[in-house]
Amino acid sequence: MTRIRQLHLGAFMRPVSLHTGAWRFPGAYPDANFNFAHLKRFAQTLERARFDAFFMADHLAVLNMPVNALKRGQTATSFEPFTLLSALAAVTEKIGLVATASTTFDTPFHVARRFASLDHLSGGRAGWNVVTTSNPDAALNFGLDEHMEHDERYRRAREFMDVVTGLWDSWADDAFVRDVASGEYFDPAKLHVLAHKGDYFSVRGPLNIARPPQGWPVVVQAGSSEAGRQLAAETAEAVFTAQPDLEAGKRFYADVKSRMEKLGRDPDHLKILPGAFVVVGDSLEEAHEKRERLDSFVHYDSGIASLSIALGHDVSALDPDGPLPEIPESNASRSARQRVVDWAREEGLTVRQLAQRVGGYSGLQMVGTPSSIADEMEQWLTEAGSDGFNVMFPYLPAGLDDFVGKVVPELQRRGIFRREYEGNTLRDHLGLPRPANRFFAVDDRSAISQR
Amino acid sequence: MTRIRQLHLGAFMRPVSLHTGAWRFPGAYPDANFNFAHLKRFAQTLERARFDAFFMADHLAVLNMPVNALKRGQTATSFEPFTLLSALAAVTEKIGLVATASTTFDTPFHVARRFASLDHLSGGRAGWNVVTTSNPDAALNFGLDEHMEHDERYRRAREFMDVVTGLWDSWADDAFVRDVASGEYFDPAKLHVLAHKGDYFSVRGPLNIARPPQGWPVVVQAGSSEAGRQLAAETAEAVFTAQPDLEAGKRFYADVKSRMEKLGRDPDHLKILPGAFVVVGDSLEEAHEKRERLDSFVHYDSGIASLSIALGHDVSALDPDGPLPEIPESNASRSARQRVVDWAREEGLTVRQLAQRVGGYSGLQMVGTPSSIADEMEQWLTEAGSDGFNVMFPYLPAGLDDFVGKVVPELQRRGIFRREYEGNTLRDHLGLPRPANRFFAVDDRSAISQR
Ligand SMILES: Cc1cc2nc3c(=O)[nH]c(=O)nc-3n(C[C@H](O)[C@H](O)[C@H](O)COP(=O)(O)O)c2cc1C
Ligand SMILES: Cc1cc2nc3c(=O)[nH]c(=O)nc-3n(C[C@H](O)[C@H](O)[C@H](O)COP(=O)(O)O)c2cc1C
Repeated sequence: MTRIRQLHLGAFMRPVSLHTGAWRFPGAYPDANFNFAHLKRFAQTLERARFDAFFMADHLAVLNMPVNALKRGQTATSFEPFTLLSALAAVTEKIGLVATASTTFDTPFHVARRFASLDHLSGGRAGWNVVTTSNPDAALNFGLDEHMEHDERYRRAREFMDVVTGLWDSWADDAFVRDVASGEYFDPAKLHVLAHKGDYFSVRGPLNIARPPQGWPVVVQAGSSEAGRQLAAETAEAVFTAQPDLEAGKRFYADVKSRMEKLGRDPDHLKILPGAFVVVGDSLEEAHEKRERLDSFVHYDSGIASLSIALGHDVSALDPDGPLPEIPESNASRSARQRVVDWAREEGLTVRQLAQRVGGYSGLQMVGTPSSIADEMEQWLTEAGSDGFNVMFPYLPAGLDDFVGKVVPELQRRGIFRREYEGNTLRDHLGLPRPANRFFAVDDRSAISQR
Repeated sequence: MTRIRQLHLGAFMRPVSLHTGAWRFPGAYPDANFNFAHLKRFAQTLERARFDAFFMADHLAVLNMPVNALKRGQTATSFEPFTLLSALAAVTEKIGLVATASTTFDTPFHVARRFASLDHLSGGRAGWNVVTTSNPDAALNFGLDEHMEHDERYRRAREFMDVVTGLWDSWADDAFVRDVASGEYFDPAKLHVLAHKGDYFSVRGPLNIARPPQGWPVVVQAGSSEAGRQLAAETAEAVFTAQPDLEAGKRFYADVKSRMEKLGRDPDHLKILPGAFVVVGDSLEEAHEKRERLDSFVHYDSGIASLSIALGHDVSALDPDGPLPEIPESNASRSARQRVVDWAREEGLTVRQLAQRVGGYSGLQMVGTPSSIADEMEQWLTEAGSDGFNVMFPYLPAGLDDFVGKVVPELQRRGIFRREYEGNTLRDHLGLPRPANRFFAVDDRSAISQR
């Protein structure tokens, strides 16, 4: 009997939620950005629900928006992902821990080392979300006047990854013999000095960390441009992506998986997980009411700033309670602009309602009952739109508890989501192979034990 | 009644011990470098003993010694300090957590952010050991052909610290109002954009982390040169130092504290903690036997390499079981060389015994009974040799358990070490003031509450 295809679920975590009205929602924890007790509870709840991974994005500057809009939301500051995930490693046992690190504003030795260390700390649960950094203001915090040019960022990223994976392979899996009798702690024949010299980096090695339990922490990618997709197809094992709907999702899925095939990679060795903002109600109506109520907490100043960005026009002078007038074309993303205009027209939204929706969250959403949401997820899975989702909770803790308490059991009942973890590592959860050590393939202890 | 001066105790932690024979000692955990369960037990034990801090050194390359010597010890690889201390933050409640970060091979934005994040995670228990990096091989892992010149390293360090402390002050302590009713999450008047432009760094800011609970994590320094002492006097709140004996300790103590007075700083706002390697026995004899037994586990290959470095001469061709012959002068440190030669002469050690001692550990040691060790520590305290110690355990867990179970109660009985923590932060433990925010001194919430 072949097994039904399984859904993989990551939690795209922000301590308070990524929706900028969420901190004002009744029952929310407005102080969660720096309250570890809350984060611990969230991670443990997700682990009980058997999520594949807890994922933290990362930004190396506060969002570049006007301070009058910025001050309305909770996103300007929160824990740094590495310290947070390391702390969470100590209070969880199975859930994967994916941190974001930038190839543009960090260096391979540090990145290789921290992820390897997190992998050891967590017993093989670390993942690295490789980003070239989306917020151009980050450059100003690292001695540059402007962001590195896009294609150059990706060339640097490619070499960065070669160095990092090379450093992870510094030691054979069985290098540390710790032979008390002879006094040999490691076998020097199982130590490889990388001696990398490339266009962007020169790194001697070896890494001062033993090979990670997973061989390599899982490599995740979140770029969407041509260069980003290609990097994913060449190197990634999971992709986080923003897809507006199933049709777009299918195109993206087919594109990335076919790039892999051309490169000779097994398409199953990369899981595609679009972000999905999930609002659960006991009825469709209740779910939509929740979403509207949440949007109503988005302050107009921040909503209108986001709407202006989405439309590519300053619309701050419009009557908030009137309808959206004709807006001339601009060089904002056309598809995003059209989606926003369509919402206003089809649902008869006022400028305020539209601003609050866009300022809250405007990507892929699933608003419905446990069963309608499970239907949608199942459809993406069976129609090759994705291998699962990176779930965004509209507000916390209630939105997370709703998903865990209502949607997960429904997915389990349908047999498309695990009831128990089958392994201990993030690779086990995602169904990914353990990479062989490129320098010590033959002697690899785990390669032997896997036979 | 004035209170008796109190000892401050840090634990200079290596997972297996810094003594290179320790991994072979009966009962040791040779795998502790990557075994979090052991580290957790150590940290919790130190917390029960009311230690001020758990300290992790950091090296950005494996030790630069011949691989035949390196392979004999357990020091080539272990957890990266930031990930480890963050994980320990989640399983401890009071003990300070001091991590080392390099001003030569890291950048101010990352360092400011991680320490601020650790301070939030731990509820105000973070400390930063500022180093300019001692191992020159680190340069090779960060794109350089050789180590940055010594004085330049310290000039860069000085500016680095200005930027980091400036970033920590990005937000007033009361910037985050989180006013649900008005929808204002932070008050923009309490946000400061650093806009630093200096010789080494240009960093705009603000930091995307709220001001740390301690205002600033505690700043620790471990340099010993003229430039290092001056940096400590200007900026540090604790100093870790290697002092061979009480006389040298007193000179160092007087030097650093008088530099502070010249700068107008209160000398009590910096605690000097020499490293002390403590071997506890129920009798003097037993203690010395333990030390000798431990040294006997140092492999000759690694001992003789260390001895050659200490003497400034390759002595690997000598008869291991003969006495040390006359060794010509060299440009190795004269005082270190003389100490080693004196040991050989005074105790009639063979070359092997000497090599094993030097290869194991050759700095300040206290080998004795709980009472003789407490005497020594008290003498340093009363004669202004130090404000406490950074204790190094000869082997783990037994050496740590001996110190905690036997020496700490003796220090407590004498009234020179706390029985309970009196506060919650590392600053509380060390008796250090909370720094005012340089940009928001007047509005500082805690400055008000401290009145
Ligand atoms: C789900 C998701 C998560 C992302 N997380 C981050 C992040 O944490 N940090 C970041 O700088 N960029 C992040 N990005 C942005 C991407 O790294 C990338 O910059 C963006 O998708 C544009 O792609 P491109 O650079 O290939 O054009 C994320 C994107 C997506 C879709
Ligand atoms: C107790 C102690 C701990 C130290 N820890 C580190 C460390 O973790 N990493 C490092 O690179 N250097 C470390 N050092 C070395 C100092 O940072 C410094 O390089 C060395 O003392 C030489 O001082 P100088 O550079 O001022 O001449 C330590 C020194 C001492 C005494």
